[in-house]
Amino acid sequence: MDEERCCLDVICEDCLTLIEIDEKRRFVVRIRRGAVFGSDKGSIKHDDLIGLKYGSIVRLSTGVKAYVLRPRLVDLMERFFERKTQVIYPKDLGFIILMTGIGPGSKVVELGVGSGFTTAVLAHIVGPTGKVYAYEIRKDMIEIAKRNLEKAGLADRVIIKHKDAREGIDEQMVDAVIADIPEPWSVLDHVHKALRPSGVYLAFIPSTNQVVKLLKALEDRGYKGFTRPRIVEIMLREYQARSDAFRPKTLMIGHTGYIVYMFKVENTT
Amino acid sequence: MDEERCCLDVICEDCLTLIEIDEKRRFVVRIRRGAVFGSDKGSIKHDDLIGLKYGSIVRLSTGVKAYVLRPRLVDLMERFFERKTQVIYPKDLGFIILMTGIGPGSKVVELGVGSGFTTAVLAHIVGPTGKVYAYEIRKDMIEIAKRNLEKAGLADRVIIKHKDAREGIDEQMVDAVIADIPEPWSVLDHVHKALRPSGVYLAFIPSTNQVVKLLKALEDRGYKGFTRPRIVEIMLREYQARSDAFRPKTLMIGHTGYIVYMFKVENTT
Amino acid sequence: MDEERCCLDVICEDCLTLIEIDEKRRFVVRIRRGAVFGSDKGSIKHDDLIGLKYGSIVRLSTGVKAYVLRPRLVDLMERFFERKTQVIYPKDLGFIILMTGIGPGSKVVELGVGSGFTTAVLAHIVGPTGKVYAYEIRKDMIEIAKRNLEKAGLADRVIIKHKDAREGIDEQMVDAVIADIPEPWSVLDHVHKALRPSGVYLAFIPSTNQVVKLLKALEDRGYKGFTRPRIVEIMLREYQARSDAFRPKTLMIGHTGYIVYMFKVENTT
Amino acid sequence: MDEERCCLDVICEDCLTLIEIDEKRRFVVRIRRGAVFGSDKGSIKHDDLIGLKYGSIVRLSTGVKAYVLRPRLVDLMERFFERKTQVIYPKDLGFIILMTGIGPGSKVVELGVGSGFTTAVLAHIVGPTGKVYAYEIRKDMIEIAKRNLEKAGLADRVIIKHKDAREGIDEQMVDAVIADIPEPWSVLDHVHKALRPSGVYLAFIPSTNQVVKLLKALEDRGYKGFTRPRIVEIMLREYQARSDAFRPKTLMIGHTGYIVYMFKVENTT
Repeated sequence: MDEERCCLDVICEDCLTLIEIDEKRRFVVRIRRGAVFGSDKGSIKHDDLIGLKYGSIVRLSTGVKAYVLRPRLVDLMERFFERKTQVIYPKDLGFIILMTGIGPGSKVVELGVGSGFTTAVLAHIVGPTGKVYAYEIRKDMIEIAKRNLEKAGLADRVIIKHKDAREGIDEQMVDAVIADIPEPWSVLDHVHKALRPSGVYLAFIPSTNQVVKLLKALEDRGYKGFTRPRIVEIMLREYQARSDAFRPKTLMIGHTGYIVYMFKVENTT
Repeated sequence: MDEERCCLDVICEDCLTLIEIDEKRRFVVRIRRGAVFGSDKGSIKHDDLIGLKYGSIVRLSTGVKAYVLRPRLVDLMERFFERKTQVIYPKDLGFIILMTGIGPGSKVVELGVGSGFTTAVLAHIVGPTGKVYAYEIRKDMIEIAKRNLEKAGLADRVIIKHKDAREGIDEQMVDAVIADIPEPWSVLDHVHKALRPSGVYLAFIPSTNQVVKLLKALEDRGYKGFTRPRIVEIMLREYQARSDAFRPKTLMIGHTGYIVYMFKVENTT
Repeated sequence: MDEERCCLDVICEDCLTLIEIDEKRRFVVRIRRGAVFGSDKGSIKHDDLIGLKYGSIVRLSTGVKAYVLRPRLVDLMERFFERKTQVIYPKDLGFIILMTGIGPGSKVVELGVGSGFTTAVLAHIVGPTGKVYAYEIRKDMIEIAKRNLEKAGLADRVIIKHKDAREGIDEQMVDAVIADIPEPWSVLDHVHKALRPSGVYLAFIPSTNQVVKLLKALEDRGYKGFTRPRIVEIMLREYQARSDAFRPKTLMIGHTGYIVYMFKVENTT
Repeated sequence: MDEERCCLDVICEDCLTLIEIDEKRRFVVRIRRGAVFGSDKGSIKHDDLIGLKYGSIVRLSTGVKAYVLRPRLVDLMERFFERKTQVIYPKDLGFIILMTGIGPGSKVVELGVGSGFTTAVLAHIVGPTGKVYAYEIRKDMIEIAKRNLEKAGLADRVIIKHKDAREGIDEQMVDAVIADIPEPWSVLDHVHKALRPSGVYLAFIPSTNQVVKLLKALEDRGYKGFTRPRIVEIMLREYQARSDAFRPKTLMIGHTGYIVYMFKVENTT
C-alpha cells in the first residue's frame, strides 16, 4: 500500500478534483492543462494543482485557503453530475444497498434510471465483477445518465436499456430489482421472473398513495410471488460542527420517499 | 445467469437459511442432516428443506406456512450473530459506506470491533479484493466477532488485531478509518498517519458530549490534518404494511448515534 | 400571592398528590386519612403527608426518598385517569390548542370523547367561563370520561352527549370543532353549521388512508365551506437528563396521528 | 351563542383580518376606512370588507379569490408581529403550556421576552384573570414586544420589566417560570424563590452545550430545590394537502430548541 497512484493519491491531468473552500463552496473539476478554476473567493490555475497530493491545502489568487480533495462518488453526485430529475439521496441509497443485500459481483436490475444517480451507486457497489441492467423510457434521461456514469468512470458496469419494464425485463436470475418508477405495482410479474430465487424487490416511492397502491396490488394477489413487504422512511438531520454550539441545523430535508422491499418467493401460496 | 448454485439458489447441507413465519418470527439456521427446526408455531425437519429452492413456501408440523429464504447479511446480523455490545444499525451503516466512499477493493481500518457487525458489513462491501483491519482491546469481543464473521463467511477479508489504537495503527495508505470507540479524538494523529491522502475518518458517537469533545479536539489543533467535519444523525421509521391502514408503527428507535466524518488533509494549515 | 391554599400549596385531605420516587415510579393518589401509599420502593401513610407543602421531600418506610408534588393535568392523564382507548398525547394537544385558537372562554365541540383525555385538556384551557360540548356514541366510554373529568375537577365545564355527530351537532357559533373519530369527513356539513364564522375544524387522524379520504371529500365538494387544510405530524423525542451523557433516549413514540385543520368559510365558492 | 360580534364574527373598522389568497399569500391587516389592501395577485378596498362576516370569500381586483378570516393568535405571530429575534414556535409553545400546567388565571414569570411571541401566547392562555411578568434586558426588544402585545390586544395581562433576572425576580408564588435566556442555569435560586411550592421551571434551549450546562448546574447542587428534569425536543413535519399525492413537504424545520422542565421542591435534599 505504498506507491502513490494518479487520480488516487496524486492530482494528474484529467483527474477529478474536489476543491473545497468552505461548506457551501465545494466544486468538482476535471484537471486540464491551461485551465483556470474560478470562484467568488478567488481562482487558481489547474497547472498549479497537477502533481499535488490529494488533501493538499492551496491558496487561491485572493489568498483564501482551499482544500483539493479526491472526490468520493457522493461528491460527484452532489457537485459534478447533471441532474434533471428527482434523485434518491445517499441516506436512502445506503440503506437500499444493505436491504437488497447486494455487494461486489451482484447482478442488479434498476427500473427508472432518471439522472443515473442510483445507477452510479449500484455500479460502484457491485464493482467490476458485477453488472447493473438499467431500464429507462426517456431517451433524454438516458443521455444524461450515460454522461454521469462516464464522468464517474462507471459506465462499463452498466447496460442502459431504452425500454419500458412493463413490457418485460430481459434478465433472469438477478440478485435484486430496484425500482424508482411511478407505478412499481405494474411490473410485479416481470420482476418476479427476473429475480433469482429469494431475490429482493425494492421500490422507492414518494407518496403514501403510491405505497398504498403497491400494498393493495400485493394483497390482491394474495402475496403471490412475494413476501409481505417491509416499509421504512429515513430522515437525516445535519448538525452544526461547532464545539461551543452543537445543535442541529435549522433546516432539513423533511421527505424524500418511502422504501418498500420484499423477497421473491415461489409463485404458489 | 442460469445455473442454480448451492447456498445461492438451492438449500443444501450447511447452507444458512432464513425461516420466516411472520414479521416477528424470523430465524436463521444452518442446515444439518437430521436436525429439526422448532418454534411455537410448529417444526420442520432440516432434511425436508434440503434441495428446495430458496424462496420456497413450506408447511410446518402445525400446517402453518413459512418461507425459507436466503439470508442477507442484515438477516444474519439480526438473527444469527451473537451480540454482546451496542452495534451500529443498517440505517447508519449504509450511510457510512457511502460517506467513506469505500467499495470493492477498498482497504479499511476499523477501530472498535465490538460484536463485529460493522466489520461484517465493511468486509461484505470491500469484497474479496479488499481488506478490513480491525482493532479491538477486549479479547472476549474479538472471539465473538470472529465467530460472527465465520458465520457470515467473511473472515478471510478481515484481520482482527488485539491492540489499542491509541498506541498506533500499523497500516498506511488505507482508504478510510471508521471508529466506534469511546474517545475518537484520542487517535487523531494515528488516524492521520494511517489514511491515504484525502482519505476519510468517520466516527460513530452515541452522546452529544463525545461529539463536542471531538469537535473541540479538532478546533484546538486548528483542524490540522483534517477538514472541518460533517455531522449527521439518521432516524428510521417503520410503517405498517397494510393497504387499508398505512401509517408508521407506534414505536421506533429514537437514537443510535451521531455520525461525524472528515477528509484527511496535509498536516499544515 | 402570599396565602397558602389547600390543594394548591398545601396537601390536605382529598387533595390529589403526585408521589415521584424516580422517573418510572410516579403515582397520583387522593389523600385519605388512614390510607397508606405503597410501592416496591417502600410505603408512607397519607396522614404523614397532610399539611406538608407540595414539593416536600419525604422518606418512605425503606428510607427511599420521594417527592410529593402537585399533579399537573398531564400527570393526572398519565397516572390517574382510566384509559380504555387510544388517546391524543400532550405533544399533539398543545399544538391543537394553538391551531384552533381556543383559550379562556371559548366554546368548543369535541367529536369522539373516548377516555376523555382531550376533553380534559380542552376544559382546562377554556376555563370556568368556557364550555366543551363533547359527543360520544359509546356509553361505556362516556362513563370513563366522566369519571376522569371528575377526578380532574373539570366536569362542570363539559357537557357530554351520547349522540352520533353524523346525526347533527346541536350547538351553533362555537369557536372550534375537534374530531377524533374514524370518519371525520362524514360530518363536514354538521361541523360547518356548528362553527362560528371563520371557526376552525381540526381532525386528529391515525392513518394516511383516512387523511386521504378527508382530503378527497373536501376536494370533491370544491372546498365548499372550508379553506384548504393544513396537515402536520408532530414527533417528540425524549433525552436522558445526564450532563455527562446527553443524548436522546433509545426508544421513542414513532407515531400517534396526523393533525388536519382548516377554517370554516362561506358555503359558496 | 347567537349574536354576531364585531371583530369576532363581523369585520368592522379597526378589526384585524387575515386575507388568505393561497398558502404562501397570507396577510393580516387592520381594517381602516379608505385604505386599500394590495398584493401581487390583486387588491381590494378595506371599505369593501367592512360588514362582511369573517370567512367570506371575496374577489380581488384581478378576479382572484381570497378568504377573509379572523386571525388566530398564531396568524398574528406569523404575519402581523414584528420579529427581531429567534422566537419559540407553536409546536414548542403548545407543549410548554401543557407541561407547565398553566391555564386561565395562572401567574407566570417569563425570562427573556425577545419579540414577545411567547409572552403573547402565555397572556392568551392565562386569560384576563391571569398575569404574565416578563423580564427583558434589551430596551429595544421591550418596545417591539409591547407593540406586538398591543396588536394582539393582550398588553393588559402582561407586565414587562426592564430587568436582568440574574439580579432577582420580584414575584413570589407564581405557577411557572419560563426561560428563553442564554444562561438558564444562572437564575436557579431566583427561580426557586419566585415559584409557588411544586411550581414548574421550564427552559427553552437552542444548543446541546447549554442543556449540558444546565444539567451540570443542577447536578452540582445535588438537585437542591428542583426535581431531576425532563428534556424533550419536538419536530413538526408538514404534509401536502393533496388527496392524490399525500406526502410530507420536502423541506422542514430541523431544529428549534430543547425543552427542559422540572418541579420546584423543598430546598433540602
